[in-house]
Amino acid sequence: MQVEPQTFDRVLSSMCTEPHPDARTAAERFLATNPGDPGTYPAITELEEEAVSTLGEIAGLDSPAGYVASGGTEANIQAVRIARDRFESRDAGRLSNRSETEMPNVVMPESGHFSFQKAANVLGVKLRIVPTDEDHRADLEAVRHSVDERTALVVGVAGTTEYGRVDPIPELGEIARSVDALFHVDAAWGGFVLPFTDYEWNFSHAPIDTMAIDPHKMGQAAVPAGGLLARDETLLDELAIDTPYLESTSQATLTGTRSGAGVASAVAAMEALWPGGYRRQYARSQRNADWLADALVARGFEVVEPTLPLVAADVPVSTFDSLRREGWRISRTATDEMRIVCMPHVTRSMLEAFIADLDRLQCRASVPVISDD
Amino acid sequence: MQVEPQTFDRVLSSMCTEPHPDARTAAERFLATNPGDPGTYPAITELEEEAVSTLGEIAGLDSPAGYVASGGTEANIQAVRIARDRFESRDAGRLSNRSETEMPNVVMPESGHFSFQKAANVLGVKLRIVPTDEDHRADLEAVRHSVDERTALVVGVAGTTEYGRVDPIPELGEIARSVDALFHVDAAWGGFVLPFTDYEWNFSHAPIDTMAIDPHKMGQAAVPAGGLLARDETLLDELAIDTPYLESTSQATLTGTRSGAGVASAVAAMEALWPGGYRRQYARSQRNADWLADALVARGFEVVEPTLPLVAADVPVSTFDSLRREGWRISRTATDEMRIVCMPHVTRSMLEAFIADLDRLQCRASVPVISDD
Repeated sequence: MQVEPQTFDRVLSSMCTEPHPDARTAAERFLATNPGDPGTYPAITELEEEAVSTLGEIAGLDSPAGYVASGGTEANIQAVRIARDRFESRDAGRLSNRSETEMPNVVMPESGHFSFQKAANVLGVKLRIVPTDEDHRADLEAVRHSVDERTALVVGVAGTTEYGRVDPIPELGEIARSVDALFHVDAAWGGFVLPFTDYEWNFSHAPIDTMAIDPHKMGQAAVPAGGLLARDETLLDELAIDTPYLESTSQATLTGTRSGAGVASAVAAMEALWPGGYRRQYARSQRNADWLADALVARGFEVVEPTLPLVAADVPVSTFDSLRREGWRISRTATDEMRIVCMPHVTRSMLEAFIADLDRLQCRASVPVISDD
Repeated sequence: MQVEPQTFDRVLSSMCTEPHPDARTAAERFLATNPGDPGTYPAITELEEEAVSTLGEIAGLDSPAGYVASGGTEANIQAVRIARDRFESRDAGRLSNRSETEMPNVVMPESGHFSFQKAANVLGVKLRIVPTDEDHRADLEAVRHSVDERTALVVGVAGTTEYGRVDPIPELGEIARSVDALFHVDAAWGGFVLPFTDYEWNFSHAPIDTMAIDPHKMGQAAVPAGGLLARDETLLDELAIDTPYLESTSQATLTGTRSGAGVASAVAAMEALWPGGYRRQYARSQRNADWLADALVARGFEVVEPTLPLVAADVPVSTFDSLRREGWRISRTATDEMRIVCMPHVTRSMLEAFIADLDRLQCRASVPVISDD
């Protein structure tokens, strides 16, 4: 195998990062285990309980239910699945006059992750996408107008993919309750930085039913280690499928065989870093984001204020493309802003090198090109 | 972290195994990559293309489409999803008089894996389970009677979970074609041993549309490395969801972030073992299965003939439980037979130790217990 894994020294777009050394070691030790088969692999099952318990602590939930998923996409799909199945089992009695073909709906701000599109396609629910306000947060009036008696789930985002924004979680929870819908918070990326901010985002702040919170993003675990949390074990019952051939009797996960490496590395990362290490990392990442935002503003770009460690700026597409050609891994928002995620592997010196390249390219762009012919 | 991963020296129930040393090394090197984000992690995307190409070679498909999934469950769910969406997009024109609430159906022998139950629940299709014949293979007459104009997919299994049986794949393919349904073969476990047998099971033998074939089972890759193959790229188009924020533009996988470790380890294992190493491993595993079956028959148990390296035997539940208490990881079929999978880590000396324990327990059971009081 000739291919080399690329290094992280130019990766500014990823929401994954280099695993913490303890997480890497744990992943390597538990590489050949399968938490999807707890009767055969009991040690990793024990570790998974530990992971869920710590995730609950991080997310303000005393007796958490949940599991280590393959990632935020699985956690989001499963949350929609729980809501759909709960709605449908309740629906038969409640709405006898409804058209049988009308799907349950999920109400989500436009800042929600594309995995909800996937969930809607897979699960046969209608996704009602509502606008965000001028600060890129869910517009509460729009959400209020969109929910109805067929709303199975309201989604809030705590740390959006494009701008790192936190929706008004308690208010969204109230709206969900007002129509007897479940409330899911996508904190896949934000969950490991928000505990060190003043945001109201977790189970103790709002009537949240389920949450995506991924150790393999800001939690510094190895992929695949996503997290699905549920306030109550009964919510997970909607997902259970009987499992012959296994010594356990049912399975609530979306996948079957699962990665023990991910589970073990999540436990190891959280043991090493929660809470002090994550707090320090958050502070470092936020300082880097603020520095980068200032540097971009100083160069005349329009920048979306980084309220979490994620910077979006109105850099022209041609400059963006040139930076990509220089090897920088950067990505774009839906409205073509450049987007940089200050993950743990993103250091100040990386950002300095990036800005130096940007300056060089801008300078070159402003010098008239002398034609060859 | 105090927990130790258990060793494999008593694991007889798993369809996973110790990864090949090259697979382990590759997994460790690519631990921090995400094939779900090809714009950021191009090296692992290149490796994934290599993996799909070799999987195609193994499965008799010249220009394979597909990807490295989290496992057989994801591959099976995705196959059902392709079939459902293809059926529904075609259906509008074809069946104008149908009841709008009648779901498309999937016809599967009862030997099919429980992941299809999960797929049916998630995707809203009706699973029609048909009996198997006296040799535990799909009963063709029953399948013929079960398919109809609302059949979106017929499923065949090439290496069943309980008995290692291979369904009559070409005939099932014909039945699927006769009602214009897609045909999926679940070779998640069997795919890496069947090339060395006389079975007709692959894309060159039958009109197969999609297949599950998992490197992380008999392929000796590290978890998570499942495989979804499709005869034609257009089949995967049914799955594509737009992906803003990523430099790639759409995503056909069920999960989002994915494990580079799994992909890299699949490539490394297949480079090391295809075809000679897998051929030798199949021969070893089959000899072990035959030896174990003979040993059990000699002790008076009823044994299902192991036509692939998997042994099921009518061992009483009390003896089964005693063996579990001795630390043997064994599991049961739906009809309570003991089931042992001769994976690469299962050696002759392990099986000898197992039979010695069985003899000791049988002997003890036949001696009257002297009561303490």
